Amino acid sequence: MINIAVLGYGTIGTGVVEVLNTNGESIAKRAGDQINIKYVLDLREFPGDPIMEKLVHDVNIILDDPEVKIICEVMGGVEPAHTFVKAALLKGKSVITSNKELVAKHGAELLNIAKERNLNFLFEASVGGGIPIIRPLNQSLTADEIVEITGILNGTTNYILSKMSEEGIGFEAALADAQKLGYAERNPAADVEGHDACRKIAILSSLAFGMQVDYEDIYTEGITKISDIDIRYAKTLDAKIKLFATSIRENDRVYAMVAPVMIKSSHPLYSVNDVFNGIFVRGNVIGDVMFYGSGAGKLPTASAVVADIVDAAKHLGINIWTIWSSKKLELTDVNQVQHRFFIRVKGNTPQVVENVGKLFGDVEVVAAKGVAGEYAFITQSLSEQDLKEKANNLDGVLSIIRARF
Amino acid sequence: MINIAVLGYGTIGTGVVEVLNTNGESIAKRAGDQINIKYVLDLREFPGDPIMEKLVHDVNIILDDPEVKIICEVMGGVEPAHTFVKAALLKGKSVITSNKELVAKHGAELLNIAKERNLNFLFEASVGGGIPIIRPLNQSLTADEIVEITGILNGTTNYILSKMSEEGIGFEAALADAQKLGYAERNPAADVEGHDACRKIAILSSLAFGMQVDYEDIYTEGITKISDIDIRYAKTLDAKIKLFATSIRENDRVYAMVAPVMIKSSHPLYSVNDVFNGIFVRGNVIGDVMFYGSGAGKLPTASAVVADIVDAAKHLGINIWTIWSSKKLELTDVNQVQHRFFIRVKGNTPQVVENVGKLFGDVEVVAAKGVAGEYAFITQSLSEQDLKEKANNLDGVLSIIRARF
Repeated sequence: MINIAVLGYGTIGTGVVEVLNTNGESIAKRAGDQINIKYVLDLREFPGDPIMEKLVHDVNIILDDPEVKIICEVMGGVEPAHTFVKAALLKGKSVITSNKELVAKHGAELLNIAKERNLNFLFEASVGGGIPIIRPLNQSLTADEIVEITGILNGTTNYILSKMSEEGIGFEAALADAQKLGYAERNPAADVEGHDACRKIAILSSLAFGMQVDYEDIYTEGITKISDIDIRYAKTLDAKIKLFATSIRENDRVYAMVAPVMIKSSHPLYSVNDVFNGIFVRGNVIGDVMFYGSGAGKLPTASAVVADIVDAAKHLGINIWTIWSSKKLELTDVNQVQHRFFIRVKGNTPQVVENVGKLFGDVEVVAAKGVAGEYAFITQSLSEQDLKEKANNLDGVLSIIRARF
Repeated sequence: MINIAVLGYGTIGTGVVEVLNTNGESIAKRAGDQINIKYVLDLREFPGDPIMEKLVHDVNIILDDPEVKIICEVMGGVEPAHTFVKAALLKGKSVITSNKELVAKHGAELLNIAKERNLNFLFEASVGGGIPIIRPLNQSLTADEIVEITGILNGTTNYILSKMSEEGIGFEAALADAQKLGYAERNPAADVEGHDACRKIAILSSLAFGMQVDYEDIYTEGITKISDIDIRYAKTLDAKIKLFATSIRENDRVYAMVAPVMIKSSHPLYSVNDVFNGIFVRGNVIGDVMFYGSGAGKLPTASAVVADIVDAAKHLGINIWTIWSSKKLELTDVNQVQHRFFIRVKGNTPQVVENVGKLFGDVEVVAAKGVAGEYAFITQSLSEQDLKEKANNLDGVLSIIRARF
């Protein structure tokens, strides 16, 4: 029997308990031993819940119990999670976490402590919910140099954009719908401003390139400015607008960015809709692979946490090697990155058209049904810096969206 | 330095050498040691190829060299691969293979030998080419009971069906095109009759359910009877025809089948086109996940082989646990399985319509542009056995295709 403790009895914590109860027998077979939840840590009480027998309010009871071999941290947030996790590792316990803030900020440090002590620090659930992506990156794509990782990593924004596209409604209406369904929080900033996706791509980039990618360094733009008119244009282009979190290696330099992009149906992430997540990886020998599934939700996320518990149980005393040095990866200045851009400007007079021609040269003009009094076009590929300068000289810019085609 | 040997210098063998040369440095970092190809076994000579220095014609040179720790079997076919691989394991060498025939037939036996000796027998490349699926099934989806695995597992047939759909051409023309491009062999039976996909779903099913699924037990139907007219009907339904290899657990019984099916755009495998493969997995807690990528090809397949080499190198003396007992899993009789069926019959006279109504009750009638003199419909869900009996009483049946909607 392997004793574990669960830190945090919120959505994911209850999911972990449920998964271990539901599939306990087959999990024991795969882990080579029964997994027993000895403690659950939470400040709250849960009267009537059988978990009360195992509930403790003081983390030291768990940390000081040598019988506890594995700890699942599913509280979220950097503190006190970081203090608890670090203390657990220093006490010789392996740690599983679903906490993207913790992993993005302290992943390198915690992996290093785990490695020095022949323990494991595993975090499959921190990115992409149930989708296996951390383990495949670490253990399956090891023959490749990763050239690109691009993910739809936030289910809330993907739901909002899908809804806007399907129903022709605006951002605010789609957000309200997502909040009603529990897909978006009352304060939706972390999702809609792209911060959640940013932390996740920071983790994936650190793993793909083996060095610390600080999320503060990643250019991040949310979806709040995307309008129903933008989406109408996308439709005439047989395109969709998706919030991409992307990290690309070009000439031994890496750039990373979170921003809405237009993609066409030939892109593997085009059909990742609603709350689903998808992660596209390009390697220099494997070519393109894509992983798809539920990026959030109690049970899918708990499934990933429990799979990590199984892995930790199979590897008691054996460190599963993960390359993520604390050395900082200096990202390319995003101003140097080249894209095509979809741009809408007020007015469609000959003067506007002439001005666009002067600034951008040959462009692809786009018309959308029922939209009048404006002019929309797609530029040739140019750098973000160039775009900014040209757009500053253009009157009445209504929107600018990067185009991946 | 870890010495390895490559058995077979064909397409995949040359790919393995190329990947190790191209990405040697980062591979060494991930494996924890330099990987050195000490021998390549092939009956042929390769004048002018630097591989000649390492070429041997006698497998015993490799088997008897205690310096060789890992063997990659990339010859294909059951024999002599099985004899060589078994001998290698018995001599204390871990084995990597891309050989689906070998794994489908002898996987349980070889895994068992490897386990008893603290060695590894790894076969990521045997299914889905470069797509990570074996390792995710073994190590990532361990918290779940697998309910379904459905794959587009054969790139050749997927290319043919995509081509037929895109260009409106018939099976023979699309096959000729695939042969011209090197996607189909001169004798295409193994692909177009579904045998290749059958072996692959046998492997995935054995891993998902932990017991031996014999490929001879799996009902297998190829794509040779699919016509351009069938595809025209599919289009009017917003559907595509795909060769599905599927394995489904219902009420603790498993059925498995390889057959063309119609799917609509809401199915996650709908956008898996051309030579790409996709594998859809449904677990009882994780929900739906999907893996997508190049299902064949020299470098993607070699990428999977080399990733297994890295894993074996990291696990010298430590068996990576895989649950695949040699106990046979008795599959449900496919006649009991229920589907909807798309059926075309000659004639569209009131008599035909009446007869269809008498046999099948309420059906969904389908018309296709430019197709006349026949009647097409989709049945309610009924068992394969029922379908056969009813179809036997129906005159002029032109085609029957399972519908997954």
